[in-house]
Amino acid sequence: MNIQKVLIANRGEIAVRIIRACRELGISTVAVYSEPDRDSLHVRLADEAYCIGPTAAKDSYLNFTNIMSVATLTECDAIHPGYGFLAENADFAEICESCNIIFIGPSPDAINRMGDKSVAKETMKLAGVPIIPGSDGIVDDIEEALMVARDIGYPIIVKATAGGGGKGIRIAEDEESLVKQITAAQQEAQKAFGNAGVYLEKLLTGMKHVEIQIIADNHGNVVHLGERDCSVQRRRQKLLEEAPCSVLTQDVREAMGKAAVRAALAVDYSGAGTLEFLLGPDGHFYFMEMNTRIQVEHPVTEMVTGVDLIKEMISVAEGNTLSFTQEDIVINGWSIECRINAEDPERNFMPSPGKIGFYLPPGGLGVRVDSAAYPGYTISPFYDSMIAKLIVWAPTRQEAIAKMKRALAEFAIEGIHTTISFHQKLLEHPVFLEGNFDIKFLEEYEI
Amino acid sequence: MNIQKVLIANRGEIAVRIIRACRELGISTVAVYSEPDRDSLHVRLADEAYCIGPTAAKDSYLNFTNIMSVATLTECDAIHPGYGFLAENADFAEICESCNIIFIGPSPDAINRMGDKSVAKETMKLAGVPIIPGSDGIVDDIEEALMVARDIGYPIIVKATAGGGGKGIRIAEDEESLVKQITAAQQEAQKAFGNAGVYLEKLLTGMKHVEIQIIADNHGNVVHLGERDCSVQRRRQKLLEEAPCSVLTQDVREAMGKAAVRAALAVDYSGAGTLEFLLGPDGHFYFMEMNTRIQVEHPVTEMVTGVDLIKEMISVAEGNTLSFTQEDIVINGWSIECRINAEDPERNFMPSPGKIGFYLPPGGLGVRVDSAAYPGYTISPFYDSMIAKLIVWAPTRQEAIAKMKRALAEFAIEGIHTTISFHQKLLEHPVFLEGNFDIKFLEEYEI
Repeated sequence: MNIQKVLIANRGEIAVRIIRACRELGISTVAVYSEPDRDSLHVRLADEAYCIGPTAAKDSYLNFTNIMSVATLTECDAIHPGYGFLAENADFAEICESCNIIFIGPSPDAINRMGDKSVAKETMKLAGVPIIPGSDGIVDDIEEALMVARDIGYPIIVKATAGGGGKGIRIAEDEESLVKQITAAQQEAQKAFGNAGVYLEKLLTGMKHVEIQIIADNHGNVVHLGERDCSVQRRRQKLLEEAPCSVLTQDVREAMGKAAVRAALAVDYSGAGTLEFLLGPDGHFYFMEMNTRIQVEHPVTEMVTGVDLIKEMISVAEGNTLSFTQEDIVINGWSIECRINAEDPERNFMPSPGKIGFYLPPGGLGVRVDSAAYPGYTISPFYDSMIAKLIVWAPTRQEAIAKMKRALAEFAIEGIHTTISFHQKLLEHPVFLEGNFDIKFLEEYEI
Repeated sequence: MNIQKVLIANRGEIAVRIIRACRELGISTVAVYSEPDRDSLHVRLADEAYCIGPTAAKDSYLNFTNIMSVATLTECDAIHPGYGFLAENADFAEICESCNIIFIGPSPDAINRMGDKSVAKETMKLAGVPIIPGSDGIVDDIEEALMVARDIGYPIIVKATAGGGGKGIRIAEDEESLVKQITAAQQEAQKAFGNAGVYLEKLLTGMKHVEIQIIADNHGNVVHLGERDCSVQRRRQKLLEEAPCSVLTQDVREAMGKAAVRAALAVDYSGAGTLEFLLGPDGHFYFMEMNTRIQVEHPVTEMVTGVDLIKEMISVAEGNTLSFTQEDIVINGWSIECRINAEDPERNFMPSPGKIGFYLPPGGLGVRVDSAAYPGYTISPFYDSMIAKLIVWAPTRQEAIAKMKRALAEFAIEGIHTTISFHQKLLEHPVFLEGNFDIKFLEEYEI
């Protein structure tokens, strides 16, 4: 079927990104917004826009009832959830299905199987995807945990099965601390996620965060679109992403790509998804988790492959086969994305909401800005502090870095603090320039 | 040699374009400006900026003495002239040479040989480049003109040899009008250009304006970078350009490319240049003129080839060989550029200078904005009315058109009239959508 009208169940730059893709496809758009987001760019750019509740996300952007009411009343035939909020909510995907509205994303079952970390790990193991040495799923008691730990060796990570994105993680250096951490982690997980299940993993060092973008249709076709190096992280939050990855050999790249395709096939995946791996200095890689949605950093993949991921998500949601095969995908040049956040890097990245005065994004060859900011826009303190994604493309990594430095220097955002100055320092750092930094890079070096 | 510091002898978006390329190459930049341009973006973005005179171009942007003084005092080792102003001034190029400052462009001799239209035509003829049937250079008297006209047939165009860009052109339908037009054209040319020489050409109909971008180094290498279709013109001013050209067959494309390379070799060309051709419905093409400089519409070529033309110009000016060969050039996808002018399309494109209020350029995948505008910037009535070039890239022409429509709809420029609404209508026109429009398109259809 042809999708005629899409409700975008999100805000900020990703809502704008999706509206742009829909408009180019001739699809009508319905924006939804919380009360403080009344003057947001996604509200201005959409064909229609409706308020779905007050500030708190649970009352607005997570409000199933209001969102489904708008979708039904405006006769939308699909909902794009973006990232965050409802993007990985299987219940919401199911409700869409039951209302006969297309959820632009994978099936509720695929979301569920990847959402539970120990189920995901087990599924990946069966699919032949390398996993981090650890317990076979949830550890039932301390005795089992101690046995597993003896087998794989310390240090050990204790993870909540319902956690994710760095939440619910503890580290044990020896048997004594393992006993303590298991108990604490179970209690914490019960409280935070309503699920006390924890599992163990070997703590690997010198690892890069390298992820593979995949996209799948409903006809059994899965294509991988190369990797992204997302190792520049602060408190497990990505700050800069690039494609391709400096240290990846062609052999490992292909092995990772194939593993990602096997992973997607194992859960009958449909739509865009990302397999996150840890990549060791020896070229071994290990499955971390699958994000069953479009990601913040998807543009770098678009820049090096020429594929519009949002358009392709919509196309496969319409029931079409993928518009390309694996052989069509060629990685061309280099792309870097800097997340520009309304935060003060001089004050420990404290959020810096407020009204933007003068605003002028950079332009020119190879510069892409995905943002919902504009002159006079007030950054709300209630949501994500990311205000723009600055993405560049150039033939080589060195040229992409030079272009990013040029673009950052041009980016004028007055009235609030931003992370532009942080990125400028980062792009001068010799370890970054060398390219073989790992996920501990920002912990080890003051920037 | 490595160029360390470049003076940009221009203003507006092309000055910004050149500053961006220099910054990415680690080259320092010196901007020059006329008094009313004090608050221009190129002044803000350059490392240094100097006022070179009052409003009138002859006193500022054409002021050899002041420009050379700034270049010398700031120890620039090169000058980039952009387009317009001094870009095709052989005397200026010569002065640069004599001051030991690199003129980033071709030699004075190449500029001269292409600047005189009848010399250029003769040179092209000798180089085996197809030329428009007409007189062998300047016609000495009415008798010769009548004889040539009998040979090639009416209607005939009378052109001033010192003219260009549509200036100094008259059309004769028969012998009687030819006698009249020759005399008038000679008098006019004497007055306007100080050179009464006129030549004759057959008036061709149904022609497209298709041009070939070339770039040459100082070591005898010339590469062509495909074509641009610039047939959308109003009073011989280009309004929209695209690459590639919808109707060009691969055979004709290659023949045109080869002819362009022969043309460049014939004048020992160096740097970026453009061979403008008329392309007939039968696939025959004819040399019109060579622009011995970077052109306004160069970005569409950059988008489909991945080559940064300004960086490559600087590189060959440094004495390097071209960084690519003909075989490396692959045309990928489709690019369109819309020139956004401060003009009122509802009032016969009357200039609309004034202060910009709210300003927000479009963003997202495949959208490039080359502009010197910003919120609060005052468009001066004294210079070119072009305030932004909106350039898009997509895999196909149809997708590029959809993307341009999306981007135009997003482009917010308050406080002045712009040609955005004109482009929106143009992009809906069935003749434009079909792609085989000729240079009379905008005369024949009301848009």
